[in-house]
Amino acid sequence: MLDLLIKNGVVITMTGKGVGVIPRGSVGIKGNRIEFVGEIPTGCRAHREIDATNKAVMPGLIDAHIHSGLALLRGLAQDTDHWMQKALWPFAHALTPEDDKIGSMVNIIEGVMAGTTTFCDYDSNMDSLLENHMKVGTRARVAETINEMPDDMPELDIGDLYPLDQDSGQRLLDTSRKLLDKWHGSGQGRITCMLGPQGPDMVSAQLLQQVFELAEQYDTMVHMHVAQGDREIDQMLKRYGKRSIPWLDEQGFINQRLLAVHLTEATDEETRLVAQRGASMVLCSGSIGIIDGIIPPAATFLAGGGRLALGSDQAPGNNCNNMFNEMKFTSILNKCRARDPRVFPAWQVLRMATIDGARAIGLEEEIGSLEPGKKADIIVIDMDAPSLCPPILEPVRNIVPNLVYSANGSEVDTVVIDGQVIMEERRLLTVDRQKAMAEARTAAAAVAGRAKLGPDILAVEMMAKDQL
Amino acid sequence: MLDLLIKNGVVITMTGKGVGVIPRGSVGIKGNRIEFVGEIPTGCRAHREIDATNKAVMPGLIDAHIHSGLALLRGLAQDTDHWMQKALWPFAHALTPEDDKIGSMVNIIEGVMAGTTTFCDYDSNMDSLLENHMKVGTRARVAETINEMPDDMPELDIGDLYPLDQDSGQRLLDTSRKLLDKWHGSGQGRITCMLGPQGPDMVSAQLLQQVFELAEQYDTMVHMHVAQGDREIDQMLKRYGKRSIPWLDEQGFINQRLLAVHLTEATDEETRLVAQRGASMVLCSGSIGIIDGIIPPAATFLAGGGRLALGSDQAPGNNCNNMFNEMKFTSILNKCRARDPRVFPAWQVLRMATIDGARAIGLEEEIGSLEPGKKADIIVIDMDAPSLCPPILEPVRNIVPNLVYSANGSEVDTVVIDGQVIMEERRLLTVDRQKAMAEARTAAAAVAGRAKLGPDILAVEMMAKDQL
Repeated sequence: MLDLLIKNGVVITMTGKGVGVIPRGSVGIKGNRIEFVGEIPTGCRAHREIDATNKAVMPGLIDAHIHSGLALLRGLAQDTDHWMQKALWPFAHALTPEDDKIGSMVNIIEGVMAGTTTFCDYDSNMDSLLENHMKVGTRARVAETINEMPDDMPELDIGDLYPLDQDSGQRLLDTSRKLLDKWHGSGQGRITCMLGPQGPDMVSAQLLQQVFELAEQYDTMVHMHVAQGDREIDQMLKRYGKRSIPWLDEQGFINQRLLAVHLTEATDEETRLVAQRGASMVLCSGSIGIIDGIIPPAATFLAGGGRLALGSDQAPGNNCNNMFNEMKFTSILNKCRARDPRVFPAWQVLRMATIDGARAIGLEEEIGSLEPGKKADIIVIDMDAPSLCPPILEPVRNIVPNLVYSANGSEVDTVVIDGQVIMEERRLLTVDRQKAMAEARTAAAAVAGRAKLGPDILAVEMMAKDQL
Repeated sequence: MLDLLIKNGVVITMTGKGVGVIPRGSVGIKGNRIEFVGEIPTGCRAHREIDATNKAVMPGLIDAHIHSGLALLRGLAQDTDHWMQKALWPFAHALTPEDDKIGSMVNIIEGVMAGTTTFCDYDSNMDSLLENHMKVGTRARVAETINEMPDDMPELDIGDLYPLDQDSGQRLLDTSRKLLDKWHGSGQGRITCMLGPQGPDMVSAQLLQQVFELAEQYDTMVHMHVAQGDREIDQMLKRYGKRSIPWLDEQGFINQRLLAVHLTEATDEETRLVAQRGASMVLCSGSIGIIDGIIPPAATFLAGGGRLALGSDQAPGNNCNNMFNEMKFTSILNKCRARDPRVFPAWQVLRMATIDGARAIGLEEEIGSLEPGKKADIIVIDMDAPSLCPPILEPVRNIVPNLVYSANGSEVDTVVIDGQVIMEERRLLTVDRQKAMAEARTAAAAVAGRAKLGPDILAVEMMAKDQL
């Protein structure tokens, strides 16, 4: 007896070397795993059935880099240079841990409603944010931010070298250790933890060494911003006289445990080195486009044989956390970077958000494709939504291109994570969505009121000019 | 007595030089026009009220270039070079006029549900497509495609000069004249017509002269693809020894009546010339990104003082017809083109899809902003949607940036066009959406079956490789 049978859909399995479409098929689920894909075995019965006629059935999407705790600041930081110092920080410093948690719930709901089933959430106060992931029922592979920024950070001008504080670093490392002990492998294995040094500019070599040792000990990965901006490179040059990637490589930190996020400022040579060492890359097309006006060197990374995943990054400066948005931007921005419409075709980008993404974050045995034995993380997509209509099945198909270039996430009808139906016909079943939004509105008003906004903050200037 | 009162919303009027936000305000409508914006006058009553608490109220979006008749081919043409010849045409040639109409309905519904209220629809069989616009209740400013392509087009290799056929041209010019006589100014002025020569490579100078004379006579604009691709430039060089824009300018066709679409291959000098002559430009960021991997020279055009609107182009090669998608791509692609996050800020792009777009298409007296006396084309947007939550109103606002960078169109709750409520709480009131989608599915299957697909068609190759 199955627990759940999803039948009569266009099943996009993401197995094999392409997309593995079964034009009319079913997926059977028992407990938290997939029992079969394709034809329904004779005599098969299920406790619950979902009819997927005129719908696509595919693996849930993987958001390999999201800071969900910043969601209350959505839309407060863009259209500016020095994004972190002149746009994000004044607001981020006004957030309390409770605000992080309230915001995080909005981001998780946004993601799930747009088909994200796995969240590589990277933030502070992760112990608290994980309560949201547990409540909603998402798959989470999280990292607590580790840095050596002093608690009493002095006022810095742009370009000043940040002071590093050993005690802060050790405290945060300890928080990470506790997080691993408490959560790693919990929720039937739905929750796993990585280590999260914030970037090579914000931790010392000694602390990074400890981080990688801990990752070894728990057999997990190190999720870190690498070459994420000219700000970071500038700090590295000032501190060590070396750019981020050569310095990290010299210390032995570019290896298969590393999940290197952004590579915004990496040269082609540096990018190839990261791929060659077997580290994974997370590409955040939307956020880096908005924050920096840059298209990161993902093409070079892929050409070097690297494993690549996609991430939505943070709400202040993307400003959405929606993997359909990331897929579309990844393809189109890279076509424009290469001035070649043939690169980053839809099927390849869909793999980045599913099976290839799973490989990059080290979960390819569990998720990323629909096949017997894998965890049941499945989304059902309404192809009668005007943006996906009409679906065509023969002699050629248009479904995968439309999922990448036309879908916006609102077509996702049903979401199953670890065998549990989390959303059905766009109704969230595990949490009260309206309540979460109301709490976010109230909390965000208070945060904005508390933020210390100097005259150099672009948002203040834009308000005065009637531009916000 | 008002006919409709929309109250308690964040009203984004798009008046003045910025975005003209009223943090809490109302809009009163009488007949098809706006009566007041802001405070509700004492004693004011209305037949119907819409409560816009936690919602944004703004002008409907303008899609300045869409080929709605191609919607059945959504997702059949991308990730390829020679898009028109090797991807679009084999399918487009299999479309009947009835298919165009069935597809067009899908596109119009898609647009309306994503907040588009004005459609500059550019296609063949426009007399028939206009029946859809009338039925749904949209504002349409349409153009019938005019070209001199022979009915019995010989088999051409890529790069061969197209033959031009005078009789075909005269017949299509006549169709346009009839369209103008029948529809221009109809539906209380909701329907207006432009002239639609397909491109300088597909019509002779003589025919273009007649087209501009007709535009003069009816006091309307000429909606034409200009410098839309290397294919067009190659044809112009072969036929006249001149590139598109210098040739058009020499003939006197670059003037205030011209709505020049794409400018994909225009040099900076050519682009400045178009702006300087007072012609308008339509930028189709999504489609040109997918089809060509190119970011058109919109920044140069704006720097030259030009009037610019945005368009979604066709479903086979965008693949969506959603102005929120266009706004986001316009900003991010141009930031990446300039490698500067400060360019194309949200407020400016929102103007392109509203008041500045209205100016570019010659309707600025009627639409594009919320002010007394203008036509009531209004959309109401749910800010409790996770992608727009939390809205922040003071001391700075995040609403306009989130509309441009985060919204995907599914947040549009209510659509009013020409004073009529077309959609309410995402229910379309004027047409049966499910029926339209079902018709499209059936018709598209037949079209795909009829298409003559040679081995050089990329889609065929991709099917064999499990990529579709």
